[in-house]
Amino acid sequence: MSLGEVFVSETVGTAMLLLLGAGVVANVILPKNKGFDGGWLLINFGWGLGVFAGVYSAYKSGAHLNFAVTIGLLANGAKEYAPGVEVSFASTMVYLGGEMFGAFLGAVLAWLAYKKHFDEDADPAVKLGVFSTGPAIRSYGWNFITEVIGTFVLVFVIIAFGKTPTGLGPLAVALLVVGIGASLGGPTGYAINPNRDLGPRIAHAILPIPGKGSSDWAYSWVPVFGPIVGGALAGLVAQWYVV
Amino acid sequence: MSLGEVFVSETVGTAMLLLLGAGVVANVILPKNKGFDGGWLLINFGWGLGVFAGVYSAYKSGAHLNFAVTIGLLANGAKEYAPGVEVSFASTMVYLGGEMFGAFLGAVLAWLAYKKHFDEDADPAVKLGVFSTGPAIRSYGWNFITEVIGTFVLVFVIIAFGKTPTGLGPLAVALLVVGIGASLGGPTGYAINPNRDLGPRIAHAILPIPGKGSSDWAYSWVPVFGPIVGGALAGLVAQWYVV
Amino acid sequence: MSLGEVFVSETVGTAMLLLLGAGVVANVILPKNKGFDGGWLLINFGWGLGVFAGVYSAYKSGAHLNFAVTIGLLANGAKEYAPGVEVSFASTMVYLGGEMFGAFLGAVLAWLAYKKHFDEDADPAVKLGVFSTGPAIRSYGWNFITEVIGTFVLVFVIIAFGKTPTGLGPLAVALLVVGIGASLGGPTGYAINPNRDLGPRIAHAILPIPGKGSSDWAYSWVPVFGPIVGGALAGLVAQWYVV
Amino acid sequence: MSLGEVFVSETVGTAMLLLLGAGVVANVILPKNKGFDGGWLLINFGWGLGVFAGVYSAYKSGAHLNFAVTIGLLANGAKEYAPGVEVSFASTMVYLGGEMFGAFLGAVLAWLAYKKHFDEDADPAVKLGVFSTGPAIRSYGWNFITEVIGTFVLVFVIIAFGKTPTGLGPLAVALLVVGIGASLGGPTGYAINPNRDLGPRIAHAILPIPGKGSSDWAYSWVPVFGPIVGGALAGLVAQWYVV
Repeated sequence: MSLGEVFVSETVGTAMLLLLGAGVVANVILPKNKGFDGGWLLINFGWGLGVFAGVYSAYKSGAHLNFAVTIGLLANGAKEYAPGVEVSFASTMVYLGGEMFGAFLGAVLAWLAYKKHFDEDADPAVKLGVFSTGPAIRSYGWNFITEVIGTFVLVFVIIAFGKTPTGLGPLAVALLVVGIGASLGGPTGYAINPNRDLGPRIAHAILPIPGKGSSDWAYSWVPVFGPIVGGALAGLVAQWYVV
Repeated sequence: MSLGEVFVSETVGTAMLLLLGAGVVANVILPKNKGFDGGWLLINFGWGLGVFAGVYSAYKSGAHLNFAVTIGLLANGAKEYAPGVEVSFASTMVYLGGEMFGAFLGAVLAWLAYKKHFDEDADPAVKLGVFSTGPAIRSYGWNFITEVIGTFVLVFVIIAFGKTPTGLGPLAVALLVVGIGASLGGPTGYAINPNRDLGPRIAHAILPIPGKGSSDWAYSWVPVFGPIVGGALAGLVAQWYVV
Repeated sequence: MSLGEVFVSETVGTAMLLLLGAGVVANVILPKNKGFDGGWLLINFGWGLGVFAGVYSAYKSGAHLNFAVTIGLLANGAKEYAPGVEVSFASTMVYLGGEMFGAFLGAVLAWLAYKKHFDEDADPAVKLGVFSTGPAIRSYGWNFITEVIGTFVLVFVIIAFGKTPTGLGPLAVALLVVGIGASLGGPTGYAINPNRDLGPRIAHAILPIPGKGSSDWAYSWVPVFGPIVGGALAGLVAQWYVV
Repeated sequence: MSLGEVFVSETVGTAMLLLLGAGVVANVILPKNKGFDGGWLLINFGWGLGVFAGVYSAYKSGAHLNFAVTIGLLANGAKEYAPGVEVSFASTMVYLGGEMFGAFLGAVLAWLAYKKHFDEDADPAVKLGVFSTGPAIRSYGWNFITEVIGTFVLVFVIIAFGKTPTGLGPLAVALLVVGIGASLGGPTGYAINPNRDLGPRIAHAILPIPGKGSSDWAYSWVPVFGPIVGGALAGLVAQWYVV
């Protein structure tokens, strides 16, 4: 498979993930929506099933959809990122590029789907919350640790999936993401994926959203580097443990 | 398989879908029900599991249950709509007919199951809401776009399912519909299926429901043409992408 | 397999179903419970997963757990109720007996698990509601129709399951029951199973529950005969349709 | 496989279970969390998916994660605890040790992930509630019975799983735990696992949590011995029944 195909596949899959992921948050927090105030479990299922749809959509490239996964596989010593895609600096950058562009694109599509609701009056922090995560209690160090732990769980268990064959396919990772959201999403809103947070934050900065306020760049490094560190740690530990 | 069998199969499956789909909405929004005010996730699971039951019920004809799916497969260049059912103008019309009649029939059955609750006093818009979708913020253009996006996701991912074999069967499409409802249902109530909306709207217009009010025909074209456009787009894009 | 084994298997499975089914209702409606007021979807999942556990537990006898299923298979023209269990008057009565005794036993176990919460002050109708179903709006005719429709869906789709092989096993029927509860449980609380309602009603009448009030025998025939009629109809229709 | 590998595997799996299990409780009951007051079903899914992730993580050792499961297999007459791990006094103790250490470790990780929320003002009983279970109505005898019943269901159905092959893998036990929580968790918060309760209670006693209050040692024997008795009973009954 060519790296161009990898780029398109990761773009499509990550766009699907963000369309559905940002979508469920919009539904729950933007005014006048039918799912308004629908609860945390609804948000967890929305993101989990966003992963579900995204993984099927990126079947050609192994469906990373998340640079923390790519880095985790690299740290794990993988020889291929997907059948027919060798690990190299170039392929790593192509995954990163597709994941980032897809996340941006998916957030723009979610904005289009919820356009009239973004045009309503709402707290600027709410409008940002559809795109990117933010801390419940701001504390960069502890927020970072929470993202490291959550992403460690994601990447470690994904690597362990291979050892227990089932007929679940992409549902396994979808349910894992539902679980991480339910259990570890409280303090930071579980980015657990650098692209999921940064791509949409760029979209938020660019898009003409009425009354949108700050894109909170001061926090933006936490959901980028926390997941990268968590994913890399998981890959390293799994290299020793998952054998 | 004969086209008569296809018609009956799609009728049965789509009736099952609407019985359970309209049913869950009735449970959540009609007065005095045990599931009253049960939340958006309950509605999402009700529709998703309506698809689950409907797909098993229409096993003979490939279980389209939705003219947007039929159109999507046509646009995708399919040669058969189901094993032994060739794509042709006649077979396309038979799918449309079965889907439409089934949706009408299922809505009538849901009305029978909830008869005493329809007879209670309630806002006419609530009673219509059991049958057909309506916008949270009325804006035909943006509502149309939301339906196009939601249906695109549905049909695109269904076509992609074939590339990642799992043991999930009809559960995969059921979960996909739970996800689309959670993530993209906020603005329009996710028709994502022309028959799901138009068939029950006709039932609403005909049935002797006390205090029922308007069937809102002004909006009715949105959940018909939005899904058709979204399904056709998905089939076309998938023709190039899902290979 | 001997009919004695069938009896024990159906008893164990139906007791498991009722322990978990009556249990979730107790959790949601009896005072001071951790799941108090936990919502309709919680109740739906509790019953669905009660079916899940019950079906695994009654693996020897085909896990009917419900006389409407037994009658449905009979009406469908089955030759065996389970591998090695021929359809006969005797075997039909053994299924009925095991299902009824198991439902009674499971309700007693749920009462023991929630003993201190039954001892609290509560509306007598609430205490009965843990054991047996009751109508949201009392209307024997329409309540009967609702139970017929719900049980028709259950038995019809169970018979159709065989035509679409998946790796879901008992999860398929568990999810079907979640869906029927979400979508058709609003008016009557979805008995859809004569034993599930009558066995626990007998337990309610016998057990020494403080402040327990009437067992509402006037309504008791609806959740017995509605499901039997619905199951038989489903078996007959499926004899022609599911081929 | 060496007993050292068993110890590490059970430690990793049980730590994963407790990180996600204690995590979801923290999210729902500690102040300022995004999932605050998210409902009982959210808690049930968090624990169920904690089991899901934990079972994949402990694939080497059969993923007991729970001394009640170990004791249940022993009482059931198993010859091996996992492929290549013979039942013996030594291996039983190694399972117990790994389960206990992992539960302790997972609770510490959950505390780290929610550190800033533990530092907020809250009822000491709430802070303890993240770590260990407590009764809704204190009555040691009846609380014990509730734990016996819940654990019996867990271990009995796990042993029965083997008789109905599906493609679900660890999802089956995850859903079983969701169901037990929904249906039998009301009175005691469903420890159904001695390590899940005692390991975190020790962590609670040791960790420097501001305003933490008592670790409620008076109750601590109930969620230890109730599950052990329930698991042993299930193993014994299954020895006769699940054949």
